[in-house]
Amino acid sequence: MNTLTGVGVSPGVGFGTGYVFAREIPVPPPGSRHGGDAAAERERAERALEQVAQDLERRGALAGGESQKVLEAQALMARDPGLAAEVAGLVEAGTSASRAVYEGFGHYREVLAEAGGYLGARVADLDDVRDRAIAVLEGLPALDVPTRVAEPYVLVARDLAPADTALLSPDAVAAFVTEEGGPTSHTAIIARAMGVPAVVACRGATAVAAGTPMLVDGASGLVRLAPPAREVEAAREAAAARRSALAAVGGPGATADGHPVTLQANIGGPRDVPDALKYGAQGVGLYRTEFLFLGRREAPSPEEQEAAYLEVLRAFPGQRVVVRTLDAGADKPLPFLTSSDGEPNPALGMRGTRLFQVHPEVLADQLTALARAASRAAAQVGVMAPMIATAEEAVRFAAVCREAGLPSAGVMIEVPSAALRTADLAAGADFFSIGTNDLAQYAFAADRQVGALTALQDPWQPALLDLAALAVAGAVVRDRPCGVCGEAAGDPALACVLVGLGVTSLSMAAASLPAVRAALALHTRDECVRAAQAARAAESAESARAAARAHLPGLGGLGL
Amino acid sequence: MNTLTGVGVSPGVGFGTGYVFAREIPVPPPGSRHGGDAAAERERAERALEQVAQDLERRGALAGGESQKVLEAQALMARDPGLAAEVAGLVEAGTSASRAVYEGFGHYREVLAEAGGYLGARVADLDDVRDRAIAVLEGLPALDVPTRVAEPYVLVARDLAPADTALLSPDAVAAFVTEEGGPTSHTAIIARAMGVPAVVACRGATAVAAGTPMLVDGASGLVRLAPPAREVEAAREAAAARRSALAAVGGPGATADGHPVTLQANIGGPRDVPDALKYGAQGVGLYRTEFLFLGRREAPSPEEQEAAYLEVLRAFPGQRVVVRTLDAGADKPLPFLTSSDGEPNPALGMRGTRLFQVHPEVLADQLTALARAASRAAAQVGVMAPMIATAEEAVRFAAVCREAGLPSAGVMIEVPSAALRTADLAAGADFFSIGTNDLAQYAFAADRQVGALTALQDPWQPALLDLAALAVAGAVVRDRPCGVCGEAAGDPALACVLVGLGVTSLSMAAASLPAVRAALALHTRDECVRAAQAARAAESAESARAAARAHLPGLGGLGL
Repeated sequence: MNTLTGVGVSPGVGFGTGYVFAREIPVPPPGSRHGGDAAAERERAERALEQVAQDLERRGALAGGESQKVLEAQALMARDPGLAAEVAGLVEAGTSASRAVYEGFGHYREVLAEAGGYLGARVADLDDVRDRAIAVLEGLPALDVPTRVAEPYVLVARDLAPADTALLSPDAVAAFVTEEGGPTSHTAIIARAMGVPAVVACRGATAVAAGTPMLVDGASGLVRLAPPAREVEAAREAAAARRSALAAVGGPGATADGHPVTLQANIGGPRDVPDALKYGAQGVGLYRTEFLFLGRREAPSPEEQEAAYLEVLRAFPGQRVVVRTLDAGADKPLPFLTSSDGEPNPALGMRGTRLFQVHPEVLADQLTALARAASRAAAQVGVMAPMIATAEEAVRFAAVCREAGLPSAGVMIEVPSAALRTADLAAGADFFSIGTNDLAQYAFAADRQVGALTALQDPWQPALLDLAALAVAGAVVRDRPCGVCGEAAGDPALACVLVGLGVTSLSMAAASLPAVRAALALHTRDECVRAAQAARAAESAESARAAARAHLPGLGGLGL
Repeated sequence: MNTLTGVGVSPGVGFGTGYVFAREIPVPPPGSRHGGDAAAERERAERALEQVAQDLERRGALAGGESQKVLEAQALMARDPGLAAEVAGLVEAGTSASRAVYEGFGHYREVLAEAGGYLGARVADLDDVRDRAIAVLEGLPALDVPTRVAEPYVLVARDLAPADTALLSPDAVAAFVTEEGGPTSHTAIIARAMGVPAVVACRGATAVAAGTPMLVDGASGLVRLAPPAREVEAAREAAAARRSALAAVGGPGATADGHPVTLQANIGGPRDVPDALKYGAQGVGLYRTEFLFLGRREAPSPEEQEAAYLEVLRAFPGQRVVVRTLDAGADKPLPFLTSSDGEPNPALGMRGTRLFQVHPEVLADQLTALARAASRAAAQVGVMAPMIATAEEAVRFAAVCREAGLPSAGVMIEVPSAALRTADLAAGADFFSIGTNDLAQYAFAADRQVGALTALQDPWQPALLDLAALAVAGAVVRDRPCGVCGEAAGDPALACVLVGLGVTSLSMAAASLPAVRAALALHTRDECVRAAQAARAAESAESARAAARAHLPGLGGLGL
């Protein structure tokens, strides 16, 4: 077969030789024993774990942001004293260091897997630490993707973890192709953030022979193996043309006929500001504040928060910066805020703004810090509440914001009931921003973390477009702006559809801005409206995508 | 204070002396030791646990149905060999039997609580077993609510567990009042099934002095303490008038102006058939088949299933019986079907029809058994799929049903995306039935099992009514009937509103049928439509309820 088919999750065309990244390392056989010097073997095991911990920390420091939090948590796993004691005991009893590491982690693995919930989802991170330690002990090549290369390569894997991708640069990787994952998988998010084409859910990809030239189309999801030179040439020319076409489109977002659409960046902290500026973001549509709080025993002080907010606000004088209040709970538990006794379904439990019913002081501190930062910068600050389900909740949130001196309070539309009732919610919301990822999760009752349900999280699902349309309709009645800040906003075709539905702003990973800006500039608002109507008239995500693209003739020319 | 206020969850007025059921038993103090005869003390502990196990089994056998499953699982906890060993060890070391039981359970409790999910939710069941065993050892009165009484009493409690209510009869209990719980709590469901008035989320109820006369209004949620005799008299007269008014309305369901509304029963197995017949159900709108499967290591054979289905079908010759295929997963895990490694959010995971992607043989067996039973009975059999989210899933399910020889295939509307897209789903659905409980859970992203989120599960929430209206609108376009089979259908006022939204059938706990039948018979379809419009125009559940009732003048006269 010369062509593999998957789901395109980051548009563009990439070409390079395939590098199949296999995480599997051989399991040290049961009963494998060391030579007899238990003390030396034990030291070997300890050194291997410490080496892995340091390596993870180093990568984390280089990568920063969310990756750093994940990698530091993994380093803590490698340094766990309980684990060390267990490994030492096994080695004393004669077990080889690598088998002892394997068995020692095995015990923890079971506990985590049984615990389920957030902890259960950490099993993959634990396995990664274990495999890295065994690789060190067995003298196997490090579990690393190449980061310095002569020519960009196509990174092929079953799936990719944060530690795998933390140090990759867009110069090294021509495209990502994974066998697993969906539009909201780690691979998809990282690829869009890097501006690198990616195809996920691509069966057979890891069976491709190493060194096979691969041509990856991140829009159509097609992967051509060893394509003829003229095809590559054409794709390269198209890519070059696309780059210059994208670069040629600048300034504020607008459709071909001049209908303005504010194009903003989603950021997780000051570290993401340079990219937002580089790609011409018209301010920030979603400033996630979780990363200030994650991995800490106590909430950061108002002073510390103020400094972090101020750094971001000062980068956008005169522009809009929408700060989302802490969205803890579910897959982002915090020891000082979220309950330690497991909820049966954390994503349907006490999370987001709901936690502030129990801990109003955390919200109060955050708003105080933000109000102080706002008074010291020239940005137009908006505050936005996550997980609002009813008008009553929105009104309560807005009142607290106003008390804190923050007059512009909005609501994330990520719960279906909120999408259905924006007209009511307007009593407590100056603006709305649709979070497509969580909205899809609830609308389809399909966990974002469950791979088997990936198809239901496709933002092209017509029912999700219905909810966006209903949310916009209610906002229009009350004369409130309604944007989108979920992953969907960064898909150029879907961005046109959302504008056709009446969305007034789109906020996305900064690297997606040029393609979205170009896609909008190529189509009139009428074309966007017709694309949106065609998508909503479809009965599946696939046919919605195809129907919309048929009304967006400019996308093909840009390779989008 | 002479009046307490809670949430009315089962309509009607009940009067009786208050009996406050306190589950709390004193914790055996740390360090309490036995007299020295460890063997005798150990035997005492073993006997107490066995007595509790037998008592739970006996209650289970008497109660049957779902209660039996829960009580049998509790009996297994009391007989757990690991627990017995732990208790024995503590007693050998000198600890008193009751303290040893307390500590032994404590360990299991932690494990369950840490495990979270379904297991975490079993902590309350475990505590109940522990408390019962300690009560036996300490010679405390058994943890029992009175079942044989001269006069019906008002049962007041913090919350009620299946073991508490398993043996209650409507003759013994005039009303339920609990401090905790919501419209979908165990107390609410059991009260409606028994046809007994109930008020939940009623603060201060357990502080009422024992023996206080209480007048409980299960519609308004008001609880009057020591009311004057004339008030009780008036309430009693009203109740008597209500009973005769309800009894006077018979025959098939219809509005005052003759618009037919099929009124059916929700059942869990053959055991529920007599009540369905007694209350004049026009067939079965929801036959839950889980109870055939729960608590078993393997799926029941097609022969066993056929016999169970046949028993129900034969009770409804010429009438409609809608069988829902196995809805496992989430809070109903099955060892042979659901995955043992915890999903982060089981309610958003592989549950309902999604499991049949992995285990098509379970669905095939169930459909085969049902088709055979259908061929041997004169009922009009429909099959209904739980947890359908897209048209594609509905089409796939209908195809399997037709292959099995079951031509009438429908879809539960309990995922918001399905409610939004019934017109598309009609390609694979001959009928729809809205499951309000799960639909509310997903529409508001609010777990049914989390007490703090009770207000979001109120079926009067306008956004939930919106989803029902959208579901009906899509069904009408494709000329498909759309009923409601969730708890909402059994609320007389809400039943009128649902009919006003265009719902064609209502299926409920059999005991709710007379009140709903009477409520419909008192109002024209136009009144129902206006009540529905008023409810949807409201901005909160509370105001929706009030607005609808203002258009349904007949309810007050019936005490509904």
